[in-house]
Amino acid sequence: MGSGSLPSTIPPALAGPLPRVPYKRIATEEAFGTVEIFDRYRAMLSSGGDLDPGFKSAMGYFLLHPSPRARTIAERLADVDARRIGDMDEAGIDLQLLSLTSPGVQVFDRETATALAADANDQLAAAIARHPARFAGLAAIAPQDPSHAAREIERGMTKLGLKGVIINSHTQGEYLDDPKFWPIFEAAEGLDAPIYLHPNTPSRAMIGPMLERGLDVAIFGFQVETSLHALSLIIAGVFDRFPKLTLVLGHLGEGLPYWMSRIDHMHGASVGSGRYANWKVLQRRPSDYLRENVYVTTSGMPWAPAIAFAQQVLGVDRVMYAMDYPYQYFVAEVAASDAIAGSLEDRTRFFQTNAEHVFKLA
Amino acid sequence: MGSGSLPSTIPPALAGPLPRVPYKRIATEEAFGTVEIFDRYRAMLSSGGDLDPGFKSAMGYFLLHPSPRARTIAERLADVDARRIGDMDEAGIDLQLLSLTSPGVQVFDRETATALAADANDQLAAAIARHPARFAGLAAIAPQDPSHAAREIERGMTKLGLKGVIINSHTQGEYLDDPKFWPIFEAAEGLDAPIYLHPNTPSRAMIGPMLERGLDVAIFGFQVETSLHALSLIIAGVFDRFPKLTLVLGHLGEGLPYWMSRIDHMHGASVGSGRYANWKVLQRRPSDYLRENVYVTTSGMPWAPAIAFAQQVLGVDRVMYAMDYPYQYFVAEVAASDAIAGSLEDRTRFFQTNAEHVFKLA
Repeated sequence: MGSGSLPSTIPPALAGPLPRVPYKRIATEEAFGTVEIFDRYRAMLSSGGDLDPGFKSAMGYFLLHPSPRARTIAERLADVDARRIGDMDEAGIDLQLLSLTSPGVQVFDRETATALAADANDQLAAAIARHPARFAGLAAIAPQDPSHAAREIERGMTKLGLKGVIINSHTQGEYLDDPKFWPIFEAAEGLDAPIYLHPNTPSRAMIGPMLERGLDVAIFGFQVETSLHALSLIIAGVFDRFPKLTLVLGHLGEGLPYWMSRIDHMHGASVGSGRYANWKVLQRRPSDYLRENVYVTTSGMPWAPAIAFAQQVLGVDRVMYAMDYPYQYFVAEVAASDAIAGSLEDRTRFFQTNAEHVFKLA
Repeated sequence: MGSGSLPSTIPPALAGPLPRVPYKRIATEEAFGTVEIFDRYRAMLSSGGDLDPGFKSAMGYFLLHPSPRARTIAERLADVDARRIGDMDEAGIDLQLLSLTSPGVQVFDRETATALAADANDQLAAAIARHPARFAGLAAIAPQDPSHAAREIERGMTKLGLKGVIINSHTQGEYLDDPKFWPIFEAAEGLDAPIYLHPNTPSRAMIGPMLERGLDVAIFGFQVETSLHALSLIIAGVFDRFPKLTLVLGHLGEGLPYWMSRIDHMHGASVGSGRYANWKVLQRRPSDYLRENVYVTTSGMPWAPAIAFAQQVLGVDRVMYAMDYPYQYFVAEVAASDAIAGSLEDRTRFFQTNAEHVFKLA
């Protein structure tokens, strides 16, 4: 059998205007950047120092590459007013949940990172105040200083009206399964603030073979890095220690929903045979945490078969729409998402009410 | 919604004897090991030298760990006669396609590897001669010596009656996208020998953060390593250069089927913007190669929702049964695979005729 009858991986071109739909389209992984942070990125990239290789690869492309794709994305990242809202209108997006683009402040030294996260959150709150019907946002933090990060989560949630937290996977090679970071989880759980664990390029200790091949970024490395990070949190017992913590993963849960049964089986086999002395005995199966503490979004995965699979194995209440603007801004993808299978009620959950519930959008 | 109504990740316990079925059950990723190779592994592990960290982690567990799980697996790997056939009878497996267990000879020096691969193939052919109705096999090779490996493929296919080739991902950190290895692909294509690209632990340049967490093996690292390797072959243009080459991937294609649309999109975006000077322009989309040059097996993924997803996006002719004996020997998983959705014709393809076609089993 040829592949002609198989579902295309590319959304069909839009035949006319985007159809009107009876639900709000809320996009939940939408990126912006501040002038201050981009200037500092550019200064780092031109310094020639010993930079994180993934940062150099990803931000070097978006900020310095001469191609129209890179330049347009960089321009759109910097706008949180008319241009962005025009793009949202064109794509039928009612509300963007904004977050500081990866890797955020996580590549800076502790003091710079802490200050620029607060500044980015202030700028985000100001943009939301200018366009309250169109924007909501997540608080950026500097995991480099966990106790200060915890206070910034509190400030973001209580003073700035933000709806959760964005963390871009590893922070200079460190992962949040290290208990030194757990004040962040304590604050997030206490404030009912979901944490969006967004991709970063793989950490230095892992990126080598991916970087050599141009596979370190969104084509492959992002999924590896973020799957590893999320699975590490489960294995470390984060959700036993913080049972009400909510994690959000993009890209339909990275690879984890597909591997769920294998992870459960192998976790049980390793625990049962005492393979790793440092593994905690978990209260539930790894997949239970994926189903009960995790929500996933479709950013970068606007593909009906994968969406249906994630809905089937995680539940229709656990899968939300995201566009990943401006990295993947294509109106045809919105129409393809409108056309996913399921009742109108399920599509309303997917585009609107799941996000309203998770992020407490009015 | 709780997770009560979602598909369980664990096959239900078997209520009675395994049902009789009107198809042959052919298992396509079934491992064995030779005394000579295991003795050498043990000598390496006890030498305290600078071993590949993944080898130390994986084979150190299976050959040296005192748990019943590790000891039983090591014993079963070594048997290609009565004990194995008894297990097959118990699980209703008609035929095992045997292959030398990962990492095969790929951790040895070139001369040792070449000699022990030939010896393993001789032993495998002898086992098949003793039990021709129950066993078929794949030829082990030493990629360390590509031109000799090509000759061993020829010897295996034409003299020993083997049905393809097994390669356990990286060879001491090197991947088959390097053209120096392409005599292997040339021989395999010319002899119509499918190459089973089996997992290995991630290579040294990538394993660090996975190893620290006990996530370097089948729970996670195998999938990362093998997805990266297979995707690298596509990106390097291997299937444009060798359009009739057939690759077989276990574990339902590692992560690649789930990520297919994202890979296509990001590949197109990177090529379109000239991001990587060293990337070839491919004749087809990455997913086309997955659908036209690749077959996948269910080893370690005996889970109906993931099987159905792979069948939907790759085609029912592209998905085959594998047990991953003796690493994952559970009779209940066979019954769960018997119960996957689809017509009897589709289940016959899944268990029998796809494997007969790919591996030219009589």
